[in-house]
Amino acid sequence: MDYERPLFFHVMAYAADADGDVVDMVSGNPDWEPPEALRDGLREFAGFDPDQFQYPPSAGLRPLREEIAARRNVDPSQVIVTNGGGEANYLAMAAALDEGNGSEVLMTDPVYPYYPGKTELLGGTKRFVETDIDGTPDTTAVRAAASDATAAIVINSPNNPTGAVYDESTVEELVAIAEAVDATLVSDEVYDHFDYSGRFTSALSIDSTHRIVTNSVSKSMAVTGLRIGYTVVPERFVDAARTRHMLVNVATSRPAQYAVLRAYQETDPEYYVTNRQQMEERIERFTATLDSVGADYLHPDGGFYVMARFDGFPGTLDNVETLIDEAGVAGMPGEGFGDSHDDWIRFALVTPRVEEAAQRLGEYFD
Amino acid sequence: MDYERPLFFHVMAYAADADGDVVDMVSGNPDWEPPEALRDGLREFAGFDPDQFQYPPSAGLRPLREEIAARRNVDPSQVIVTNGGGEANYLAMAAALDEGNGSEVLMTDPVYPYYPGKTELLGGTKRFVETDIDGTPDTTAVRAAASDATAAIVINSPNNPTGAVYDESTVEELVAIAEAVDATLVSDEVYDHFDYSGRFTSALSIDSTHRIVTNSVSKSMAVTGLRIGYTVVPERFVDAARTRHMLVNVATSRPAQYAVLRAYQETDPEYYVTNRQQMEERIERFTATLDSVGADYLHPDGGFYVMARFDGFPGTLDNVETLIDEAGVAGMPGEGFGDSHDDWIRFALVTPRVEEAAQRLGEYFD
Repeated sequence: MDYERPLFFHVMAYAADADGDVVDMVSGNPDWEPPEALRDGLREFAGFDPDQFQYPPSAGLRPLREEIAARRNVDPSQVIVTNGGGEANYLAMAAALDEGNGSEVLMTDPVYPYYPGKTELLGGTKRFVETDIDGTPDTTAVRAAASDATAAIVINSPNNPTGAVYDESTVEELVAIAEAVDATLVSDEVYDHFDYSGRFTSALSIDSTHRIVTNSVSKSMAVTGLRIGYTVVPERFVDAARTRHMLVNVATSRPAQYAVLRAYQETDPEYYVTNRQQMEERIERFTATLDSVGADYLHPDGGFYVMARFDGFPGTLDNVETLIDEAGVAGMPGEGFGDSHDDWIRFALVTPRVEEAAQRLGEYFD
Repeated sequence: MDYERPLFFHVMAYAADADGDVVDMVSGNPDWEPPEALRDGLREFAGFDPDQFQYPPSAGLRPLREEIAARRNVDPSQVIVTNGGGEANYLAMAAALDEGNGSEVLMTDPVYPYYPGKTELLGGTKRFVETDIDGTPDTTAVRAAASDATAAIVINSPNNPTGAVYDESTVEELVAIAEAVDATLVSDEVYDHFDYSGRFTSALSIDSTHRIVTNSVSKSMAVTGLRIGYTVVPERFVDAARTRHMLVNVATSRPAQYAVLRAYQETDPEYYVTNRQQMEERIERFTATLDSVGADYLHPDGGFYVMARFDGFPGTLDNVETLIDEAGVAGMPGEGFGDSHDDWIRFALVTPRVEEAAQRLGEYFD
């Protein structure tokens, strides 16, 4: 598996080129509306004086950092506004690796493929720990794998691709492991608004200088293309993370920052509830139809994805292309997320056509 | 000199905190209007369907890449839209260093301080070659400094801070040196619309697989805060540069990309001429006043900056702070750009108050 070039692009292009109608469930692009205040923010920004079109502070617009800090109950000095969750994870993993306490990055298998890719880019060594079949990390196995060589432990809850939500004791134990080996837990929480279990625990709720949290508004505000994310880093990482952010990107795009600030300030909490409930309903409808056709799947506790498994039809790229051509449903190959779930195919429920998709799968495998 | 944290932020904060009125000539933020079509683009984007708020192609919106490619007479596959010129230089220098043909980065002294900072971030070794006093590179000295250890030669024309514009034979010779030692010339051309000499030569005009060009619309469209830049890389660097861009940033902010696309398509060439002429006039007024007060300065052939020198008053941070407090003019310490011009202070002419500033300097040093 080549982590450097995620399969997303290949599969999306293949689906787009298909002859027939295809239900696109490849990438986690929300298909619902961004907050109206975000649109208003872009319109307002368009009329600003020229000085507002110039460099924002490198770490982010001050009121945006204060807004995020207030919501996360941290000091604004610990917040860096990044070019999406992607840059946030890059900064966090770099900060952990640059400390010099080891060069190994522990991550789960199945894994979000950008983590191994970033590890290689940063000169670190990947080490995988298999989860339970439902995506729950085996903390005993993580503790056994952690050592002086460990620089970072990267987790993602609610999880992409499995839908697992790590409970409080799991997150506590993962922070404790990071502390025990002088490593840093990097907790990627971009799906935090899509927890259906009520169990989601942010790593920020555990007081420690050995955990960095990353997040973005890509999913919560349905704007993956705005590239607004952030990282919350303990004091000892602030200088290194700011310096890298400045040397790589200088700053994050200002109209997008302003639009997100207005969305934070003005969006009714109901917006987030409605989108979470919509996703939850899609999951129920999709999995009910999978039930009715006898497919095997993981019922997610959070996030956008359902992994399903079909007898004698492993989750290879070839098989995913066959499903696109012959069933009219596009998912992501399980082999794209590591070895442990390579029998599975991941479906992103970012389309209203989830029952139709499940029906097509059922008919194809009938 | 600590290249990791450019002095800009410190000096800007100091000037902002000053008691009296200060003419801010610290940072190269244009103070004129962005193109109206760019504002229109943001407004139009605000009303787009939700799918337009999602991930753009990682290398940039297709029509934007095509627009840039057509203007630069290259294939769109060679263009990557970046988070400003900052990321463009980061990708270009990383591509050169990752090739494995050496680990040294040659650059001029005086230098734009992000280049040594990025070199260190990327694990390369800095090597400086002094320019003539007016900023013209000594290509004989560059050739003497180049070796098998050289991975990249980074240049900037029109130059920040000196205002030098490299002529065609200089750029040809620098490409030839890069070819001779199997290195890559990284040519940062962000001030290309501000050439007053008529001598500016883009490295793209020299056919070679040993040169990468970086650019941005930050200066040409007066939008340093939008963070839209690009790099044009030879075919052999395309995969590596795209992969790094994807792993660090995923993509560049979409509303900013769309706004810049519209500005490219609809802006009258007169816009660029007007802004160039305004800057040229400011330079004439500023330097005429410096003449009248007997100050020593470099007359720029391009860019936004005038370096000036005052007897017995070297361009240290302390002295720059003294000028802020006692003369009411804020510049950048020459020592922030290396050793060779540490007697000088750089003034950015991004304010209409240039004569007033020169007058204040004259009175202070009278």
